[in-house]
Parts: sequence; structure tokens; C-alpha cells
Amino acid sequence: MKQQKKIAFVGAGNVAWSMAQALLAAGHEVISVYSRTSESREQLCKLLPKAKPAESLDMSDSNADIIIIAVPDAALDQITTTLKVKQNVLVVHTSGSRPLTVLESIRDARIGVFYPLQTFSKTKQVDFLSIPILIEAIDDETLLELKELALSICSDVHEVVSQTRKQLHLSAVFACNFTNHLLGISRQLLNEANLPIELLHPLIQETVTKASLQNPYNVQTGPAIRYDDIVIQEHIEMLKQHPRFQELYKALTSSIQNTSSRE
Amino acid sequence: MKQQKKIAFVGAGNVAWSMAQALLAAGHEVISVYSRTSESREQLCKLLPKAKPAESLDMSDSNADIIIIAVPDAALDQITTTLKVKQNVLVVHTSGSRPLTVLESIRDARIGVFYPLQTFSKTKQVDFLSIPILIEAIDDETLLELKELALSICSDVHEVVSQTRKQLHLSAVFACNFTNHLLGISRQLLNEANLPIELLHPLIQETVTKASLQNPYNVQTGPAIRYDDIVIQEHIEMLKQHPRFQELYKALTSSIQNTSSRE
Repeated sequence: MKQQKKIAFVGAGNVAWSMAQALLAAGHEVISVYSRTSESREQLCKLLPKAKPAESLDMSDSNADIIIIAVPDAALDQITTTLKVKQNVLVVHTSGSRPLTVLESIRDARIGVFYPLQTFSKTKQVDFLSIPILIEAIDDETLLELKELALSICSDVHEVVSQTRKQLHLSAVFACNFTNHLLGISRQLLNEANLPIELLHPLIQETVTKASLQNPYNVQTGPAIRYDDIVIQEHIEMLKQHPRFQELYKALTSSIQNTSSRE
Repeated sequence: MKQQKKIAFVGAGNVAWSMAQALLAAGHEVISVYSRTSESREQLCKLLPKAKPAESLDMSDSNADIIIIAVPDAALDQITTTLKVKQNVLVVHTSGSRPLTVLESIRDARIGVFYPLQTFSKTKQVDFLSIPILIEAIDDETLLELKELALSICSDVHEVVSQTRKQLHLSAVFACNFTNHLLGISRQLLNEANLPIELLHPLIQETVTKASLQNPYNVQTGPAIRYDDIVIQEHIEMLKQHPRFQELYKALTSSIQNTSSRE
């Protein structure tokens, strides 16, 4: 039987929001939420029956078994130098790109990484079950503890060292953040033509379904890969009101044309 | 009851391949397939019980009710100047970006456009039912005929003039062709880190699901929108073996940072 943990969150953003609710649903107890702004910590605590808003990073009196630091990468250094914890407590961060060692400055803690490979927003709760969680820890015992915690909320757990996780995060930036931006641009172009945005949904869905079945390089379609210069020039002309999109169009077209289809 | 049509294809590429099979399944008769190379026209005819490979673009003796020209945009001009058809036959092209008027040089024909908004490949048959088909025609009667043909294989038909269809096609290049390339890059980066490509599937699926529910600009995540310069610089450094990907990274990051989240 899985062990119930007492968990404290540092951070009340998108990741903390989703993860805290998933841990709660799995039977763990979220006992406190720290964040700089009182509004966000109180909002998240409202969703967590036993959680209290924490105003300080001195958690040396906390009963938490695990402290999960879910803050933007840029805020992580400041948190780790300020945070005070009880001897032997497990402290993890949830960052894809920061190494495990960033937590070494926290005295007396056992440290680890608990990185859920997903994009989160407060407006849409995702099902954690299908999300890969990547873990790393300072020693084998801690790793086992993190693995157990991960398996209590998801079914796909990977042990990955910091350097590999960083590469995975870079890959995810292309697959998620950059893709999302392109989908935003395509939606803006549809809007400007007074076309319903739903028109593109089947195409987008087929694109990602196909990309999960085959190497995308091998199924590339469109004017770039056909070297259809007439259409390409027309498109660039059509984007003249959007110089940034024009630049992207050229850079992506050039990249497609210079990419070998062999993996 | 829908009327069964006799259909001839000019072109045997990805679009012809998928569309011919969908029309066949809907009860129409595909009677011939022309393409420059004998191999591709014969391969497609093997899938179409009543179709014969055609070696010439002189189709003035053909019994076809409708001739569907499904060739790359760059080949369209040459086809239209060579093609000979019977008086009053309906000739359509399937291009997103070429205007209806490109068919005006075909003597004696009624002309139209029959553009399926989807990405096709021979290795994966798509379900036409959910694909939007965009139609345009020289007169109302022809438009009605095309609408009936479209509704026999799909449930989402739109009448769109050439200029609007061109804008839609540009939007689709961002949503499909460019997105596919980014997914290819992310897969390559995973491979280089010896990570399983399946790791990113839930993230990719969530990205497109979310983008269909909300304006992607409003749910943008990642280092660019957080202005996380440390991570951004690290990523650019990690891509030093891939100068093209580096350029794309910089251009996409800049575009994300300069895009307003208001539609």
C-alpha cells in the first residue's frame, strides 16, 4: 500500500496548482503552501482542505515529509538560499532545466528532482496519470521514495540525470512552447480572414497523430519541402503586415529545406 | 439520394491517393488516373477496381463527369494548358493556394475548386468524414454539384473564394507544415539524448488540445514568455551543433516575447 505523505509546497503557480491537486486526490496531505503573494497562496489553499498558507520560508518547524519547490527557474536560487528546513526532510524542485545540485545549498535536507513533463495552466486540470514524471535524487533511498511518490499519481516514471533532463526540456520547448506559438499565429491569420478557427482542428490533430506514428521529417508536406517558390513568395508577400511572422516563415522554410529526412 | 459520379483523376500523389479511395468508398466510380509516371498511376489504379491508367492529357473522349486535378501547385499551369476535355465537363483542382482562374485556360470546361483541408500521405489513410472541404465554382449550378460531391464524403463543406482560401492555406502552413517540422526537431533532440520519443506524446497532445480550447497566445508557457534568460542562453548554447535550430530558437523566442496575448 502506498504511503501517505505530508507535503508542503513552495510556489503556487501552474505547476503547484496541478500537482497539489493530483497529490491530494492520491491520498496525500498537502499541509502548507508558501508563495510571495498572499492572494495566490490563499487561492491554492482553498482547494486543499488541510493546507495553510505559509508566509515564511523558515520551514524548520514544519511537519512536512516532503517540500516541493515549484517556482519559475529564475526564482529558484533565491528560494534555496533562504529556505530553512528540518533535518533530513526531502526537498525537491520541479524544474526541467535546473540541475539537482541547485538544491545543495539547503542545509540538512535530502534533495531530489520531481519534474512532470507537461504544460500546466490553472484553467485546465490535466490528468496526471498519463504524464511522465522524471525523477533524480541525491541517493538511492531518496530516489526510491520519490519513485513511490511519483507512482502514486502517475504510471510513467523515469530516472534521468540532470544533463539528460535538460536536453529533454529543450526538446519539449520545441514540441510544446514553440508549437503553441505557431498554433497561435495560425489562429490569428484565420481570425484576420474571418474564418472559423475550428476549420484547422482536424488538420492539427492529424499532424500530431501522424508525428507520433512516424518520424515527422519523413512525412513533411507543404510548399517548403516541395520547393514551391511561387507559393512561398506569395506567402511571404501576404505576411508583409507581420514582419516577425515573415521572418519565422523564411527561417522555418529554410530549415525544412535543409533537413535530411533520414534520422 | 446522392448521385453517383464518374470521376477521372489527374495526378496520383498523396491527395489523389486519399481522395480517390474516399470517393470510391462513397459509391462513386473512379474511371481513370493520369500521371506522368506509369508506376504511380498503375499503383493507384490497383486500389480502384474500375480505374484505368491514362497516358495522355487528351481526355476529350473520357466519360468522366468530373475531372479532379490533384497535382503540386507548380505543375498546375502546365497541366491546364495541355489538358483537353469534353464540352461541359466539370474540372476542379485541389490546391489551397492557386485561384479558381488558373483553370480558365481549359476550353469548354465548367471549373471549380475542391480543396480538402488536411495533410495526406500514402502510408496513412485519413477519415475524410471529419475533414473540411472548401469549394468554389464558376457558377451556382456548378457550386451545387461540387457541394453534393463534397457532402458525399465529408460533413463539413465551406464555400470560400480564392483569396480567402489562400489565407487559410497560409494559416495551415503554420499549423501543420511548420508544426510538423518542430515536432521533427524535438524528436531529433530526444534521439540525440537517447530518450524514448514517446516521452513527449502526452505533452504534445495536451498542447494541441489546449490550443483548440483557448487562444494559444493566452496559454503560452516556457522560458521565452517567462523571459528566463539563463535557460534561454543555455538552450542556445546546447544547440551549437545545430546552427539552424539555434536560429529558429532565437526567432521563435523573440516572436513569443513580442506577441501580445490579446487577440
